[in-house]
Amino acid sequence: MKSKNNQPIIGVTVGDPAGIGPEIVVNALIKHQLNNRHRLVVFGDRAVIDQAFLHTGVSEDILEVHGPEDFCFQSNNLHLVNGSIIEQSVRMGEINADCGRSVLHHVSLAIDWAIKGWLDAIATAPLQKESLQLGDSPYLDHTAMFKTLTQSDDATTLFMVDQLRVFFLTRHIPLRDVADTITDQMLLTAIPRCLQYLQQLGLTNPVLAVAALNPHGGEDGLFGTEERNIIIPAIEKAKMRGHNVNGPIPGDSVFHLALEGNYDGVLSLYHDQGHIAAKTLNFYKTVSLTMGLPFLRTSVDHGTAFNIAGQNKANETSMVEAIRCAIHYGPSIKKSQEFE
Amino acid sequence: MKSKNNQPIIGVTVGDPAGIGPEIVVNALIKHQLNNRHRLVVFGDRAVIDQAFLHTGVSEDILEVHGPEDFCFQSNNLHLVNGSIIEQSVRMGEINADCGRSVLHHVSLAIDWAIKGWLDAIATAPLQKESLQLGDSPYLDHTAMFKTLTQSDDATTLFMVDQLRVFFLTRHIPLRDVADTITDQMLLTAIPRCLQYLQQLGLTNPVLAVAALNPHGGEDGLFGTEERNIIIPAIEKAKMRGHNVNGPIPGDSVFHLALEGNYDGVLSLYHDQGHIAAKTLNFYKTVSLTMGLPFLRTSVDHGTAFNIAGQNKANETSMVEAIRCAIHYGPSIKKSQEFE
Repeated sequence: MKSKNNQPIIGVTVGDPAGIGPEIVVNALIKHQLNNRHRLVVFGDRAVIDQAFLHTGVSEDILEVHGPEDFCFQSNNLHLVNGSIIEQSVRMGEINADCGRSVLHHVSLAIDWAIKGWLDAIATAPLQKESLQLGDSPYLDHTAMFKTLTQSDDATTLFMVDQLRVFFLTRHIPLRDVADTITDQMLLTAIPRCLQYLQQLGLTNPVLAVAALNPHGGEDGLFGTEERNIIIPAIEKAKMRGHNVNGPIPGDSVFHLALEGNYDGVLSLYHDQGHIAAKTLNFYKTVSLTMGLPFLRTSVDHGTAFNIAGQNKANETSMVEAIRCAIHYGPSIKKSQEFE
Repeated sequence: MKSKNNQPIIGVTVGDPAGIGPEIVVNALIKHQLNNRHRLVVFGDRAVIDQAFLHTGVSEDILEVHGPEDFCFQSNNLHLVNGSIIEQSVRMGEINADCGRSVLHHVSLAIDWAIKGWLDAIATAPLQKESLQLGDSPYLDHTAMFKTLTQSDDATTLFMVDQLRVFFLTRHIPLRDVADTITDQMLLTAIPRCLQYLQQLGLTNPVLAVAALNPHGGEDGLFGTEERNIIIPAIEKAKMRGHNVNGPIPGDSVFHLALEGNYDGVLSLYHDQGHIAAKTLNFYKTVSLTMGLPFLRTSVDHGTAFNIAGQNKANETSMVEAIRCAIHYGPSIKKSQEFE
């Protein structure tokens, strides 16, 4: 049997117990044999994992671990950090305060392990925000939890699919507010950060493209003035500061041009701009990375899919890709952080 | 030699003489052998075609035609309607009033031929709007020309790429104006039209999806209220009128779901929403159809690319696809119009 000794150790959180998280995690680990080939530690309630085994028809011997001294990866047992928040089966597809509490507990624990250096990266399955709130979480979502608990100044989302790497200048705001939200200063902060994160992924001398806001990049003011008044001046200023950045490139060609190898990353200006590009290109293989933390966090880019939870219908490809991505990039990001 | 007699007759306009139009047309016709296999009539100046032959290195004997009585498709000569607006070579990549005049003349002529029933559909190469204005065109663009000259009430753009068909509720307006532009009435007009056009393409009982405006479809008002206040009520009303429509579906999953076969068409709410989806999926194979005319017009979905015009660098795939699409759908759309 091949030794796993040089493999990074990846924490995998199962997400909301009433969603598709537990089933895509066990399918990714067992059906796709990630658990046999890599050093993975699952964070979730044992009752929830048992229920996921029932829903999916896959199973594996569980080794409950409480710290690195318990690790025995060569055994191929599924390593589980069991918080015992939920101790019986849950009703699938329902908002539930206990489910929120379980997520809060297990994700916090995984972050704590990563801070202690026991994990090299964390891959997360989706949580349900309403349940999280009901479970008395002080955090709105995963990103807030990771940013606060690691005391990071920044937590930047990066989407990866095929050769496309997409950053976001704004995200969860109404579309009508996007144009007024974008400022010169935001761009001048984001551009060097994106370039730094591309370097952390191992790209040397990366080139960033900034997407335009308006159709055809505003067509010289005909369809919007933000390019002329804000975006172009900010990009020129960034160039003068020595940053390797291009744009604004019209939204409907920038992603294509990046896929053809012209840019290493694209800074999209609003949620759907970058999301539509990545998820239309390959919905299941799109992985979300959180950059700026002391370690890498990867995540599926979909939600809890309550409507099909527990039915073994959910596609686990994105979970598989998120774990693979954590294995691939986790060590280099951890290393780059240590030098800063 | 196989007879071309059952083939539809397609007009192909070369677009702005100083752009990539002429070279992608001759490459599509000669290099890709569309001219040998189909009944095509090119509309453009002879001097411009000769120049394109020089730029591309391909050539074919030209048969100048003045009406259907001159057609001789079995000969494989390149059928040309030569307006003789430009009679010498043009400087590539430059705004030029004569180029605008040439476009106005040849596109108008092609439309006239289609109205007379001499053509079954028209495929257009890109024009340059500024040159068109300098050339004293009363029309802003192709669509305005086709709509006015055919006296059509509607001229709706439809993007096709692979199995994806995308309509647009709004297009050439600033992103900041999109939310305020969308109304209940616009949706209630567009939904049945889109369904009608899908039927004209040969789809029986088509299903339409309406994309959401805000991230996650507004997440119940958290990231925008347009879904709750305008889009959902309009869709419900359309359903009550018997239209087969779903939505609003979040922008970052609706195109993926359509590609998986859940919807026959997607009504996107703004330019980049639909454009990013289609052109990131396959930039070169995206074809634009103009629906609502007495005949089909297809078009490449890119511009004149002045920066590479005349260098034989332009990719002609979209032109090839636009002509193929005209051949494929032209007859059924012409037929459906005759019954109305």
